[in-house]
Amino acid sequence: MYELTIPFSEKEPLYEQIYKYIKVQIRTKRLLAGTRLPSTRKLAEHLGVSRSTTQLAYDQLVAEGYLEARPCRGYFVAKLDTLFHLEQKMEQAEEKKSGEKQRWLVDFSPRGIDLERFPYGLWRRLSRNSLSDDNRELFSAGENKGDGALRQAICTYLYGARGVNCRPDQILVGAGNEYLLMLLHQLLGNQRIAMETPTYRQAYRVFECLGHQVIPVEMDGSGMRADALEASGAKIAYVMPSHQFPTGIVMPIKRRMELLAWASGQEGRYLIEDDYDSEFRYKGKPVPSLQSADTKGRVIYLGTFSRAVAPAIRVSYMMLPESLLALYESSCSFYASTVSRIDQRILTEFMKGGHYERHLNKMRGIYKAKHDALLAALFPLSESFTVSGEYAGIHILLKSRRGHTEEELIQAAGSVGVRVYGLSEFDIGKQEQGKEETGTVLLGYASLGKEEIERGAGLLARIFSELPKGKQ
Amino acid sequence: MYELTIPFSEKEPLYEQIYKYIKVQIRTKRLLAGTRLPSTRKLAEHLGVSRSTTQLAYDQLVAEGYLEARPCRGYFVAKLDTLFHLEQKMEQAEEKKSGEKQRWLVDFSPRGIDLERFPYGLWRRLSRNSLSDDNRELFSAGENKGDGALRQAICTYLYGARGVNCRPDQILVGAGNEYLLMLLHQLLGNQRIAMETPTYRQAYRVFECLGHQVIPVEMDGSGMRADALEASGAKIAYVMPSHQFPTGIVMPIKRRMELLAWASGQEGRYLIEDDYDSEFRYKGKPVPSLQSADTKGRVIYLGTFSRAVAPAIRVSYMMLPESLLALYESSCSFYASTVSRIDQRILTEFMKGGHYERHLNKMRGIYKAKHDALLAALFPLSESFTVSGEYAGIHILLKSRRGHTEEELIQAAGSVGVRVYGLSEFDIGKQEQGKEETGTVLLGYASLGKEEIERGAGLLARIFSELPKGKQ
Repeated sequence: MYELTIPFSEKEPLYEQIYKYIKVQIRTKRLLAGTRLPSTRKLAEHLGVSRSTTQLAYDQLVAEGYLEARPCRGYFVAKLDTLFHLEQKMEQAEEKKSGEKQRWLVDFSPRGIDLERFPYGLWRRLSRNSLSDDNRELFSAGENKGDGALRQAICTYLYGARGVNCRPDQILVGAGNEYLLMLLHQLLGNQRIAMETPTYRQAYRVFECLGHQVIPVEMDGSGMRADALEASGAKIAYVMPSHQFPTGIVMPIKRRMELLAWASGQEGRYLIEDDYDSEFRYKGKPVPSLQSADTKGRVIYLGTFSRAVAPAIRVSYMMLPESLLALYESSCSFYASTVSRIDQRILTEFMKGGHYERHLNKMRGIYKAKHDALLAALFPLSESFTVSGEYAGIHILLKSRRGHTEEELIQAAGSVGVRVYGLSEFDIGKQEQGKEETGTVLLGYASLGKEEIERGAGLLARIFSELPKGKQ
Repeated sequence: MYELTIPFSEKEPLYEQIYKYIKVQIRTKRLLAGTRLPSTRKLAEHLGVSRSTTQLAYDQLVAEGYLEARPCRGYFVAKLDTLFHLEQKMEQAEEKKSGEKQRWLVDFSPRGIDLERFPYGLWRRLSRNSLSDDNRELFSAGENKGDGALRQAICTYLYGARGVNCRPDQILVGAGNEYLLMLLHQLLGNQRIAMETPTYRQAYRVFECLGHQVIPVEMDGSGMRADALEASGAKIAYVMPSHQFPTGIVMPIKRRMELLAWASGQEGRYLIEDDYDSEFRYKGKPVPSLQSADTKGRVIYLGTFSRAVAPAIRVSYMMLPESLLALYESSCSFYASTVSRIDQRILTEFMKGGHYERHLNKMRGIYKAKHDALLAALFPLSESFTVSGEYAGIHILLKSRRGHTEEELIQAAGSVGVRVYGLSEFDIGKQEQGKEETGTVLLGYASLGKEEIERGAGLLARIFSELPKGKQ
């Protein structure tokens, strides 16, 4: 048995000193994997401390994975590979957190959103009110579909802003789109699901993970092709008609009608409309939802507060058409809501007080200014590049007219410290043939300041115009 | 077109009066299903109000399902059957909320928990601190498994209180057990799952809904029988060894070892340990978890804060053994956490500050006092009834020695205004043969006050001892 002699100081609690001492011994391999440590009792005697002190130290070491507690046998130093694997991961995570920001002068990530303007003060106030003594019932279980008042507020908003026709009882509130898709999966059963490609990979992963067969369907300038959809043999199609991610295509009414006709052509066909960032449109009238044109009850409508409010607000909603609602009521209505009632109450007040619409209006103005600044700064490239997906959402696409590959563009941008994203990153189902080369990169601008955008776009404009003609 | 003439008063907003007027017209069938209403513009002109006023009224009526808005066509009165269906449901829900409490003098529901003693003030304070300006990062996306600090706190708690051996990276935090089972489903694939019968029906429904084949496995006085499990051909067994719901059986160490041996007997076998109310034990030492005896990594451990803290705190956790953790990392780690970071932070502080353990200790004392009061008040029945499942959890079982059926007991209790629950309600997979008659009823006491318990149990003692001998 290993002899532990610890030079105690008075500055730290004893258990902390024991914990740190043993941790260093393990990390420096003075204590090797599999070594059995003295029992908490023996170590306590040996060090002249209480047993609860040694127990605390061991607990901490076990919790952090340095020691293994084997029932009836004692404490053993954990296997080093597990340990280093763990540490590497932690280091990688650290690096990811702190490192990336520094490695890039400007990162045009399409995933960011602007959290600077979130109404923190208001949210705190609403939260405080929700937690007042009068609201104790918020700690008991609520309605399974989500609180009635919130579903009512969502309905009213959706009707006004997106033309969605529904009753509150058709709305399910859940902790994120992914959860709602899991729930939907239980209503639809395993199906062939058609998706645009490129598409929102997170939804693709969910469908794959749930065991659906996902069929990538060709797009043209109007979005998913109806003939290709028909030929795919799919029962369900997942589309983003208001602003397709990542192409930014807005589906025109003709194509919408074709997709709706496809859906009503056979029993059991549905369109999943993911209206993920339809709130942000900078030119012309907002495009109403696909659901608003659906007279046959074939559209399942999905929306989220994660993008328009904040990613940490894990609240999404799904509107079910009558046929699926009946199925939900009979088979899945036993699931309790996954969103805490307190959060539901805060969000309800946020919507009912008109704060949500005001917040959207404010963010629309802010994002539009960023959007405009980006387009203006990219203007010098307008002869050699085309821009698409603009005037909506929070990213644009930049495509070379001179035969550059995605990789060449990403490399060139990287050489001046600017990060851009290849369109093919969002392709699905082409692992065999390799990615399709479109010479297009994505630039997200939501989380960047105006000056960062101008600086980044200025650097891109310089380096891209200096690029020799591409190979394609 | 229907002529609307509304006698306006000055007491309410105009839109409210329009909304109410039309609603009454529809409910009293003066406006019939399918009737087209004037456009918002025409109605505004007709009534001499602004168009936004009529729009607001229509929006509300649409949101509540009284009107249907058909794109490009206008507003129509909704179909009455849908509407009445809707109203009936709302009425039923209302009745459920207000009515049941009144219909029963004392309701021994096994589903209630005591929310009177929830530390509202503390929770508010922690919530306020979490939302302080320094914590703005809480509104951005967090770790997919749940915040590291919370997983660390859960690990430390589980090790100390339940003997669970794990590292924080084995813990997944999710919005309720049901969600975590959906996630687990994606790791396990469709399987034959063995469950005790009677059992926790909510978990049974989840498995069924996800498409697993659930096989009810016989229990004896030690819980799920290992030979019956082996014979069932199941790959997965869902058990509650610390305090089986609803029987209250505590699985002895010998049976635990048999189940663990079963699990390691074949690749891909796992035990799901649902440790749902292990926090509450009133006699002897706490029984350590099944996981604490698992040396082969065959136990998936599930725990929740919904029962020990509050149902609205939708936070549960699942501990994955190494083999499933690797699978999770490679296939399902893309799922974002379903719990808001703010709630995670509050809970972390609640645990780290020692409040959780203090709260559990307090509740244990409170529940024990209720438990003791119930047993004492049922003492007059001790010759004709046996009590089981006592000294733990928040309900007990009462079984007639004189051949009464469940139904006879429920009826007799109901005749004096007391509600008790039949054990067979929790049976699974016996739809064909009918419920098994055990002559046993459940009495939950968590949400009742001491006086209510004594009154209810007193009434039961009187009416049950007056019952003529049963037919069995």
